[in-house]
Amino acid sequence: MRGLEKLVTGRLEGVEHGSGVGMDALTQYRNSVKERLDSADVLVAKLVHENTVLSQTVETRTQEVENVRHQLKTLQNRVAELEGREARQEEEIEIVKDLFEHLCGVRVHKSYEDDTGLWFDASQGSRNGIMDYKLGFVKNESSAGTEVVYVPLLKQRSSDELRALQKQLPGYMFDTLSFPLKSLYQFYSKMARSLSKKIE
Amino acid sequence: MRGLEKLVTGRLEGVEHGSGVGMDALTQYRNSVKERLDSADVLVAKLVHENTVLSQTVETRTQEVENVRHQLKTLQNRVAELEGREARQEEEIEIVKDLFEHLCGVRVHKSYEDDTGLWFDASQGSRNGIMDYKLGFVKNESSAGTEVVYVPLLKQRSSDELRALQKQLPGYMFDTLSFPLKSLYQFYSKMARSLSKKIE
Repeated sequence: MRGLEKLVTGRLEGVEHGSGVGMDALTQYRNSVKERLDSADVLVAKLVHENTVLSQTVETRTQEVENVRHQLKTLQNRVAELEGREARQEEEIEIVKDLFEHLCGVRVHKSYEDDTGLWFDASQGSRNGIMDYKLGFVKNESSAGTEVVYVPLLKQRSSDELRALQKQLPGYMFDTLSFPLKSLYQFYSKMARSLSKKIE
Repeated sequence: MRGLEKLVTGRLEGVEHGSGVGMDALTQYRNSVKERLDSADVLVAKLVHENTVLSQTVETRTQEVENVRHQLKTLQNRVAELEGREARQEEEIEIVKDLFEHLCGVRVHKSYEDDTGLWFDASQGSRNGIMDYKLGFVKNESSAGTEVVYVPLLKQRSSDELRALQKQLPGYMFDTLSFPLKSLYQFYSKMARSLSKKIE
């Protein structure tokens, strides 16, 4: 615009200092002024339009930010809720394991799954003696039932502890065994009775 | 701007049709044109500035939307991860409960906490007989140890079932009992032996 104005001012000076003021020069000048004001009009209209479009975009983006922030808040609440539930579930697992340790004398240390089935590392017993073992629950292909695999874990035992356990438990409990699921309780009971025996 | 332009054009016509073209009128006109073009300049500058500010706001908001969307994505992943873990934990709780049902003949139905302590609803037994009971683990104020509260649950039993249970279990097992935690395993064993008795 500064450029345009300079031009107009220059022309006006030309009119002033010319040999006379003809109608042609004035008309020319008037047209030139009109043209320049029209250009300014067009530029202003264009800028106003751009402003409107930009304002709408700002409005849209602001709304979008608000919406996304709202979703964020909802998700944050969901995460907090899930984290709380996770903590309570971990506690529940521990509580159930503790219950069974006190009630039945069996501590489950860990459980894991592999291609063959579901496995637990556990310890059973009391102050008279403790046996560590692994129990596997595997699908029996032929009977279509579940087979239990018992694996004694004796590596952590000292020779004194081993001798004591050998006095309490029947010999077959020092080998890997396999039996149907329905015999598991019988196996557990036998183990429990054996481990409760006092060693002289 | 249209209004301004009208004014300029009008003045120009005045200049044309007047008695002569004096320097005063021209100067006046030139100043008027300059003023109008200056106003247009100011308006355009104002609009351009507004545009710049709005464009920056759009840029900022767009960046904000992007940032919040990124946080949203992170949280969505976290929710998916937590939901997966929750499902696995629920499964683990069920797996541990199943293990103990098969291993020890005790099914834990539910656990809950109240002001007095931790409570479990459970069933113990086998095909020869099943006893439903509630076990509470409460703090013993005097001994500072944990006391177990046993409450038999007999409401679901038919009179035939009750008679059968009365043949298997010692009479005291039909009353609410309280004993120290260390006697729990002994209590469980007594219950297990009693419930395994065959009724003739």
